[in-house]
Amino acid sequence: MSRYWSEVVHRLIPYIPGEQPQVARLVKLNTNENPYPPSPLALAAMQRELGEQGDALRLYPEPTGRVLKEAVSRQLGVPASQVFVGNGSDEVLAHVFAGLLKHADAQGRPRPLLFPDISYAFYLTYCALYGIEYRCLPLDADFRVRVDDYLQHPDAGAVILPNPNAPTGLALPRAEIERLVAACPDQMVVIDEAYVDFGAESAVGLVARYPNLLVVQTLSKSRSLAGLRVGYAIGQEPLVEGLVRVKDSFNSYPLDRLALIGAAAALDDVAHFESTRQAVVQTRDRLVAALAELGLEVLPSQANFVFARHPSHPGPALAAALRAQGVLVRRFDQPARIADFLRISIGTDAQCDTLLDVLRTWLAAHP
Amino acid sequence: MSRYWSEVVHRLIPYIPGEQPQVARLVKLNTNENPYPPSPLALAAMQRELGEQGDALRLYPEPTGRVLKEAVSRQLGVPASQVFVGNGSDEVLAHVFAGLLKHADAQGRPRPLLFPDISYAFYLTYCALYGIEYRCLPLDADFRVRVDDYLQHPDAGAVILPNPNAPTGLALPRAEIERLVAACPDQMVVIDEAYVDFGAESAVGLVARYPNLLVVQTLSKSRSLAGLRVGYAIGQEPLVEGLVRVKDSFNSYPLDRLALIGAAAALDDVAHFESTRQAVVQTRDRLVAALAELGLEVLPSQANFVFARHPSHPGPALAAALRAQGVLVRRFDQPARIADFLRISIGTDAQCDTLLDVLRTWLAAHP
Repeated sequence: MSRYWSEVVHRLIPYIPGEQPQVARLVKLNTNENPYPPSPLALAAMQRELGEQGDALRLYPEPTGRVLKEAVSRQLGVPASQVFVGNGSDEVLAHVFAGLLKHADAQGRPRPLLFPDISYAFYLTYCALYGIEYRCLPLDADFRVRVDDYLQHPDAGAVILPNPNAPTGLALPRAEIERLVAACPDQMVVIDEAYVDFGAESAVGLVARYPNLLVVQTLSKSRSLAGLRVGYAIGQEPLVEGLVRVKDSFNSYPLDRLALIGAAAALDDVAHFESTRQAVVQTRDRLVAALAELGLEVLPSQANFVFARHPSHPGPALAAALRAQGVLVRRFDQPARIADFLRISIGTDAQCDTLLDVLRTWLAAHP
Repeated sequence: MSRYWSEVVHRLIPYIPGEQPQVARLVKLNTNENPYPPSPLALAAMQRELGEQGDALRLYPEPTGRVLKEAVSRQLGVPASQVFVGNGSDEVLAHVFAGLLKHADAQGRPRPLLFPDISYAFYLTYCALYGIEYRCLPLDADFRVRVDDYLQHPDAGAVILPNPNAPTGLALPRAEIERLVAACPDQMVVIDEAYVDFGAESAVGLVARYPNLLVVQTLSKSRSLAGLRVGYAIGQEPLVEGLVRVKDSFNSYPLDRLALIGAAAALDDVAHFESTRQAVVQTRDRLVAALAELGLEVLPSQANFVFARHPSHPGPALAAALRAQGVLVRRFDQPARIADFLRISIGTDAQCDTLLDVLRTWLAAHP
C-alpha cells in the first residue's frame, strides 16, 4: 500500500500462477508444461541466431514479428495479416481484454463480458486491471459450457471461452462455437485455445467467415516452449489492427530475437509437433483409465491435463499426499464445487506412473 | 477502425520506433544500439540454458525474475527487494505509467504528469493508453531541463524525466535530481536512465532516501542487449510492490528463460561493460569534434548518441543525403524547433567515419 500508487492498483486481483519450485527431483505436474523437449529445429535456429558472438542481440528485434507471423500463416493456413503475436498468450490476452473486450452501449452503460464461472482465473484479473464489467455463467452439472446460456445475454459486449476449458479439460465442438459466433454478430467472441492441440477442434477455420471471432493460441503447451514466452491470435484484419495499436502503445518489441526465431522454427517442425502431441494424448488416455481404476472421477479431457476427484477424499488431502512424495499437482479453492478436484498435467509415462503409485499407496492406507 | 474495438483503441497514439530494416550493409545509426557485441559470459550462459536439447525451455520461467533481480542488486548495490524487472524498459515504463503515474486529488480531479516537451515520445503514448492527464514543460533555449520549472506545479501528481534526456543527450547532475525529488514529497518522480551509463550521474543512490523516487534502466544500450528485451526499475519496496501487482495482473512470466539468464550474466560482466562503454564514449568525443569541424552545432551529449544540426541545411535534406549513401540516422518532425536536428547513434569508429565522409562530401557539394 502506498500513496504513490495509481488508483487502479488498489483494486487489482493479481493472478497467482502455479508454483515454479527451483529444486530438482520433483514430478512437476502442476502447470501443464509439456514433458518432451521442444523441436530440435527450434533449438538449432536459436543457436544460429546467437552465433559465435551473440552479435545479433545488440540490435532490436524486427518489431512486427514478421518471421513468426509468416510461420503461423504457413502452418494454420491463414493470411499473415490475420495474425497478431505477443510475449506469451497471457500478454496477447491482456491486449485482447484492453483492446477488444471493453464495450458500452449508446448511453455509456457497460456491456458486460461473459465467461464461465469455472475457467482461466486470469480473466478476472484482466477485468480488474482494465475496469471491464463481466458476468460469469455457471457450467452445467457435468462441468460443460452450454452455448445456449450465452445466447440469453443480448446486452453483453463480448464473450471469452477457453476451448478446451481450463481447468476442466472439456471441449466444445467447432459447430457449437460457430453457433455462438454466428448468433452474436454484435458481440466480440474470443476463443482461447491454449490446449486445443491435444484433441479439440480449433475455431481458426471460422475466422475467414466471422469478423467478430478471435482465436488465441500459445507455443507453451503443444510446442514445449513455455520458457520462451510466445503466443498469438488469429482474427480478421480490423481486429488485428486494434491489437497492434494497443501493442504499439505498450511495447514496440515484445518478442526478443531468440523467441521470434525459435518459435517460427518450432511451428514449422510439424513432425516433432505431431509425435510429441500424440505421445501426450496416449499417456493421457492411460492415466485416465488408471485413475478411474483407483476410484477417481475423471472429466473427459481434450487437453494436456486431467481434472479428477476422489468420491470420498478431499482434494487438499490428496494434493498434500502427492506433494509429500514430491509430486506436484494443482488445485483451486474457488469455486467450491471444484475444490476436491486435482488438475494433473500429463507428464511422461514414467511421471504419471509415479503419481499413480503414490496415489495407490495412499488410498490403500486411507480406505 | 472496427466496432469491435474497445473505446480506448480509438484514442491511442501508437509510438513509432526507429526503423529496423532487414537488409545488410547499412550503417545503422538510428536506434541507439551498441556497436559492440554483448558480454561473452551472457552468450555462454544462454548457450548453457539452451543445453543439448533445449529441454529447459519446456518449463515456465521463474516468475519473479529472481536471478536477474539478484544480479541488479549485486551490481547496483541495492537490495533485491527494491528491484522490479520487465520485458525491456518499455514494458517497465508501461507498468510504471499504469501503476504509479495516474493520480487525482481528493475531489477526483486529475493531477497531471509533468515531462519535458522534448523527451521520449513514448510518454505521450502511455498517457493516451492509460488516460493520464499530462503537462509538457518546455526545455530552455539551450535544450536543457530546468528543475525550477517543475517546482511550480504543486497540483501535479508526478514527474518523469529521461536523464540523460532523449533525443537531446543532455543530462542533469544528480544534485539537481535530488533537489526535485526532495522538493516534491507528494509527487512520484521517475528518472528514466536508459542512457545513463555513457557519462551521466545515476539517481539510483538516492533511492534509499526518497520513497517517491523510481529509477528505470535498460540492458538495451550499455549492455548491447536490445535484441533480448530486458529492463528494470529501482525503488523502495512499496513502489516495487505496486509494479508487481500490475505485472501480475498482466503477464505472470514477462521474461523468458534465456533473457533472465543472459541479462544476469551480462550485468555481472563488469569488465566487458566498462571496456565497451569507454569505447563508445571515446568515439562520441571524436564524432562531436569532427561534426563541429564540419560546421554542425552539436549538443553536449552524455548518451550513446549525439543531437546535431547544421546552421544552414534543413534536417530532412541532411538525413536524406546520408540515407542515399546507406547511413541511417533519426529525425523528429515535432516539435518544430528540433526538426533540423539529426540524432546520430554512436557506432564504431569506422561507422562514424563513414557518416563523416558522406556528410563532408555532401556539404562540399552544397556550400
